[in-house]
Order: sequence, then structure tokens, then C-alpha cells
Amino acid sequence: MSAALTDLRPIRIADLRIHSIAVADPPLRSSYGRHQPYALRTIIELISEDGVIGINETYGGEEPKKALLAVRDQLIGRDAFRVTGFLSSLVEGPSGDRSQTMHVPGENPLDATTRTFAAIEVACLDLIGKTIGQPVCDLIGGRVRDEVPFSAYPFYKHAGGGGEGDDAREDEFGEALTPESLTRQVARMIELYGFKDIKFKAGVLEPDLEIETVKEMRRAFGPDVPIRIDPNSAWTVETSIRVGETLRDELAGGGYLEDPTAGIDGMAAVRRGLIKLGIDTPLASNVAVTCFADIPEAVRHDAVQVILCDHHYWGGMRQVQQLARLCKTFGIGLSMHSNNHLGVSLMGMAHVAAATPHLTYACDTHYPWQTAQDEVVLGGRVPIVNGCVKIPDKPGLGVELDHDQLARLKERYEKCPYRKRDDEAEMRKHVDPGWKRILPRW
Amino acid sequence: MSAALTDLRPIRIADLRIHSIAVADPPLRSSYGRHQPYALRTIIELISEDGVIGINETYGGEEPKKALLAVRDQLIGRDAFRVTGFLSSLVEGPSGDRSQTMHVPGENPLDATTRTFAAIEVACLDLIGKTIGQPVCDLIGGRVRDEVPFSAYPFYKHAGGGGEGDDAREDEFGEALTPESLTRQVARMIELYGFKDIKFKAGVLEPDLEIETVKEMRRAFGPDVPIRIDPNSAWTVETSIRVGETLRDELAGGGYLEDPTAGIDGMAAVRRGLIKLGIDTPLASNVAVTCFADIPEAVRHDAVQVILCDHHYWGGMRQVQQLARLCKTFGIGLSMHSNNHLGVSLMGMAHVAAATPHLTYACDTHYPWQTAQDEVVLGGRVPIVNGCVKIPDKPGLGVELDHDQLARLKERYEKCPYRKRDDEAEMRKHVDPGWKRILPRW
Repeated sequence: MSAALTDLRPIRIADLRIHSIAVADPPLRSSYGRHQPYALRTIIELISEDGVIGINETYGGEEPKKALLAVRDQLIGRDAFRVTGFLSSLVEGPSGDRSQTMHVPGENPLDATTRTFAAIEVACLDLIGKTIGQPVCDLIGGRVRDEVPFSAYPFYKHAGGGGEGDDAREDEFGEALTPESLTRQVARMIELYGFKDIKFKAGVLEPDLEIETVKEMRRAFGPDVPIRIDPNSAWTVETSIRVGETLRDELAGGGYLEDPTAGIDGMAAVRRGLIKLGIDTPLASNVAVTCFADIPEAVRHDAVQVILCDHHYWGGMRQVQQLARLCKTFGIGLSMHSNNHLGVSLMGMAHVAAATPHLTYACDTHYPWQTAQDEVVLGGRVPIVNGCVKIPDKPGLGVELDHDQLARLKERYEKCPYRKRDDEAEMRKHVDPGWKRILPRW
Repeated sequence: MSAALTDLRPIRIADLRIHSIAVADPPLRSSYGRHQPYALRTIIELISEDGVIGINETYGGEEPKKALLAVRDQLIGRDAFRVTGFLSSLVEGPSGDRSQTMHVPGENPLDATTRTFAAIEVACLDLIGKTIGQPVCDLIGGRVRDEVPFSAYPFYKHAGGGGEGDDAREDEFGEALTPESLTRQVARMIELYGFKDIKFKAGVLEPDLEIETVKEMRRAFGPDVPIRIDPNSAWTVETSIRVGETLRDELAGGGYLEDPTAGIDGMAAVRRGLIKLGIDTPLASNVAVTCFADIPEAVRHDAVQVILCDHHYWGGMRQVQQLARLCKTFGIGLSMHSNNHLGVSLMGMAHVAAATPHLTYACDTHYPWQTAQDEVVLGGRVPIVNGCVKIPDKPGLGVELDHDQLARLKERYEKCPYRKRDDEAEMRKHVDPGWKRILPRW
């Protein structure tokens, strides 16, 4: 007796709900400036006619919301399995230079449609998974790992946690504007989450202080903990080469130098300079290379040896898998980029990483910078144990929304003045009224 | 009331059945020699514990069967959604040069594991689709087209159809060893199937006769019917350039020159020669480039402007989608290769093509060369109308097996002497006892 279906069984979409939220975020520093007291995110719910709800999390603020609203009507009544094909022009259209040297990820207008597509794709996959009883990673080719490794992601920061007024959060990490305090921050993160790798956000202090910070971390954690350093294009080619040379040992064995300088030409020049010195520390990028269109030139000039994927802006999970195949083909490593996010995004990152064979580094995550009080996931924070997120034995992304929490974070979004990420403005407000992002700074 | 599942609902595999079959095949000619009276194929059935049967069709003969038998035990009890992740080492392992200049596709030992993976992947997708009520194309990213265009695929051939003895088949195309008779063959194919493109198998007669054949087709069908020519590496670089120059107009506007000569170096030299003459007829390949590992060198030397995918040996449907993304990224066109096949493979080709945005040419198919008497698909031959295969509103691949037909084709396999494809042997038997494949021949 065969139980084969002879008719189609679509999962018809009845509604798309879009929730703008604001999440307390500590005063983290980067070459872009300083994080605002709230990171903006968008939570979406894609509801089927059967009442199943697929969820997802993406960039926040007004623009992403508008873009999602603009496709909403086209989704209603459509089969969740066919939405991604139907919307494929959002990632398949002609694409030129999408360089985002001067944009934080999520604020690059040139990948707006790609981000919209990604937001919908993952919500569809969660909806499908929760309808048919399959984890998302197994819908997109099948898991190659059950546990996905993430890195400690230390930032130089000012004292205090995120939020404002009644929403101000405690911060257990404190100020970190010296090599020693940053290293203490990492030690605490490793204690809490068991990370086995360090991705260090640089481009904030004088390069020599950042070099000393890396050396301090190496002294504290030893050579078995790979260190990656990311100054977000803050340096000249010369400075990049000097840092690469000085830290040749510290960045060896699983480390990399990420976007030390701006542009593919700049990266290629750094690469040539390091190779000339006999140093093959890989150069990684999520700034010089942000989309498929950037890759041919990067390959031609050997500008980038590691690409940081991010399903949120690379066009979703399948695009990340396609990127991984391309990277493997050209001998390029694959790492994963992160922006501030909550547990829904973390699970999205974990699922796509679980189903991507060619993932050659532990993924980035900002998750330690958010607090349990601001989590939208039912049951609280997603556990990171031994540095890994485990794929749960649950359908879809494996998480549900806590609607009380969602309501709270939505209310906060309504009340707070922030509508797009602007690290420069925040820097001017708190640190230096004349501050501008200058590339290269050193 | 949400109908969301909270528990997983695996599709557990209970059995894998492997059927070697032999399909009557007319005496088609190519630079490899002459087709044997039977094309060998393998039909597989992947059966779930619920009794649903996923089917697929792949290369035939003893080797593919052995390879499938070797993974059989590892599939039993496993969730169909997780099989592809579990088997991913079959496509993800280290891969070097897989050049198949001297192999017909399906007989290259270097892509044996990739072929095995592909065979299982598609059977899993059909099983999943038939269990949950979704077409395969919508399981792998969603259709971007409902109808998939295929090309007429004329061959020089000897008189008569395929099969031997009682199995000998009528052949409505007759002998075609001249420009005129080959053009009549195409006219008949277009009449029967409505093809809008022509993919012409060359490398058989003197190049001047093949040039004349293309010109004859152009006279007969006009400039709106693109013509592609594929001599399977039979020519020198010089001959290739001469043919490209002579046929510059006939191959323009959607045509291409496919594997005119052997190897990436040879192809690159042809490309340089043509460009020097101001001719940008794209060079296509499924011989110089047969796997991802071949691509970087091909890109570096601009050796290939169109890659012919084939899910049967590129590692399945998702690998083809990844190839498509890579091709789009590097400005390379994507076409689709075919070997002799029945309706199950045709539907596989149609489904992956339906879910692959960057497919820039009508697909190849040998389908017109097989007969209704040899179809294993229940209800008979898959319709090709206006040159297109329509994705049916049915789960999985949209076709089922005709078990009586399958039994007949299996019995024939058992009785016939052929266990692997050998076009050279067939050539020696019927045409020239001393025949050898010589590259380049002209």
C-alpha cells in the first residue's frame, strides 16, 4: 500500500506580519563609529492558511520594513514552496558593483532586494519545516554537521550595557579600551560560551595598541585559539602589511586579516605585500566582496582568500550554499559574518552553516552582546555550549516567538528615536562632536 | 489554532531497488564512434517505510549498479531529507583533474561518486515530493519557469532503429550521412516536437561536409532557429578556428561551438584565434570542463563561455544550481548536456532546469531517439510540445514507473551482451574493423 500523494499539497500563505523591534546594544566600537543604544531588527511572521507560522529575523529600521511591505501582497495565496522561485528576480537581477566600504551591512542600498529575498526565504523555510516536520537545514540539502561552531567576538567598548532610561541594561563586560581589558572581555566570553576561536573587531585604537591587544590575547589563550582581526578597512595598504607582518605568528593557524584596507585593489596590494614577505596569512572580506558580482575581480587579483557569507544580505540560505560551492571551486575559504541579532537569526545562521559543507571557519556572532531580557525566542536565549549551537530536534528553525517579549521590543521601537543604524552620529554624540569615518584612518 | 508540528516527521528509507535496463538505441554516430543497439540505463526505486516510492534514472551497465549497491545499506533507516547531507563526501571530497576527453559521460571513473550521489539525491527528492505533495523543482528553491525548452538533437546515423533481433525497432528517421538527409531528420524532429533550437552532433564527417550541413540547416530553418555544433573534440585548433570563421553567421544569435578541440589549452587557443578574427561565437563544453575543479583554469584562460550542466554527472540538482550561480557570476552561459535517456531522466532534467534561473540555452535531449515501446514511464512517453516539457501538477518528478515495461527492459538487459557503453567497439563491428578514436581527427 503506497501512501504516495497524487495531488499537490501546497502550503498557502495567508498573511505576512512585520514587526520592527529595538534591542538594547552596548556601546561597541568599530571603524564605523559607536553602536547606538538600540540595535534595530525586524521579526517577520509568515502565516499559512493552516495557521502554521514561519518566522524570521532580519535587519531593522524603516527601510527593511518598507521593502517587506512592498512584496507582502504578492505573497498572499502563494505556495510557500514556490515563493522563492517567484521572487527570484530579487536576487537574480543584473547586479553591478555593490561595494559597501562606506555602508554597514544592512544599510547598503544596492543589496536591498537581496536582503528582502533572504528575509522571505528563511521565513518560508521555517513555515515549510514546521508544516511538514523537518528542520530547515534538512530542507536545503541536508545537514553535514549537527553542531555549528561560533567565535568569541570581542569589541573595544565604552562602559555600560545597551538601552536607554528604564531600558538600560546591565553590562557584565565593562569598558574595554586597552589590550588588557579587551583580553579580560574575551576570557569572560570564553568562560560563558566555550568559544574556541576569537574574531577581534579592530580599527578603533592606534594600530600598535591593536597589535598589542592581539599579542595579549595570544599570551592569555595560547596558540590553539585562532585569532582573526577585522579593522573594517581602517588601514592603509602599508599599515595593513605592517600589522600582517608583525602578527604573522599570531594570525597563523586558523586566523585571518579581515578587510584591513578598503577595496579590491587595496586588498590585492596588501596580499602582494605580504606574499613578498613570505607571509600567507589569508585576507578575509565582507566589505571588499559583498556579492557575487564582486568575486571575479577579487579572484583575478587574488585580493581575498576568505569570504564572509551572511545569509541575511547574500540573498538567503541557498545563495550562501552557492557561494560556498564557488569558494570551494576557487580555493577560497568561507567564514560567516554577523550583525547584532537575536536568537531567530542565530538559528538561521546555524541551520545554513549546518547544511554548508565548505564552511572553513567558526562563524561570527554578536549574540553575547545581547541580553536574556531582550530575547524574542520562547524559552529564552539559544544556548551556545563549547562554542557551538546545536541544531535542535525540532521542525523549522527550531525556535518560536515569545509574543510578550515581541510586544515589549516593538513598543520600545516605537518609543526610541532610532530608525536606521548610524554609528557615526552616535560617535559624535558621545565621543567627539567632530567625528567622521575616515578611510584609511591609519 | 496552529497546525504546526512540534515533533520531527522523518521519511525513513526502507529499501533501495536497483534495476539495470537496456533501451533500444539507433546507430547514431559521433566522434566516439557508433551507438550500440542498446543504451544502458539504471532505474532506481527508493522506498519509504510508509510505502512511498521515489524513482530515478541514471547511467547504466555494471559499474553504476555496483556503486549504488555499495551505498545501499547506509541508506536504510535514514531520513530521506538527511541522505544528501550524509552522503555529501561523495561530491565534496578532494577532486583533481577529471578531464573526460577520452570518456563518454557516465564512463569517467573520476566522477563515479558524483554520479552515485546524483542518482540518490534525485530519488530522495522524488520520494520527498511524493510524500509531502510537492513537485521536485519546488523542493530545491522553487520553479522560475513552468516549461523547459529543449533542442532538436540531430545525429549523423546509419539506417535503422535500435535493438537487435525481436527487439529491433522501426526508425522513422532513416539514414543521415549527408547534409540533406540530416536536415530532413531535423525537419521531422521539429515537426514532431516543435523544437526551436538545434544542437547538431558533428565530428563524424569531413569538416567541410559538416559545415555544409549547418549551412543546409540554416537554409531550411532560417536565422531564427539557433544552431549549436558539437564535434566532441574531433578537430585541431586550426580546423576549429576555420569552422568557427566559416560558420560565424550560422552560429551567431544563440548558437555555439561546443568542444571543437580537446582540452582547456586547446579551447583557449580556439577562443584566442576566433577573437583575433573578431568572432565572438561562444565556445561551449562538457568535455574540457566536466566538474567544478576544471573551472578555475577555464576561467583564467577564457577557454569556455558556456558550460553544459548535467545533473546526472555534476552531482545532482543542487550542484547544478550551484554551477549555474558560479557561471552567472563569471559571465559564463549555462546549457544542459544529455545522454540517451528515458522519461524519468527527462523529468529530472526538466525539474532542475525549471528551478535554475541562470539557464541560458534550450537543453539537449536524446529523447527523440528512444521509442514509445521502450518507455518505462507509466502512461507512455513524456510529451514535448513546442519544444518544451511542462512541469506537471503532480508530486515529485511527476512520473511513475510502468512495472511491466520495467520488467521487459530488465529482461532485455539480462539477455543482451552489453555491460558498458563502447562506441568504438560498435564502430569496429559495423563500419571499419580497424577504427579507433583519434583526437584530433581533422
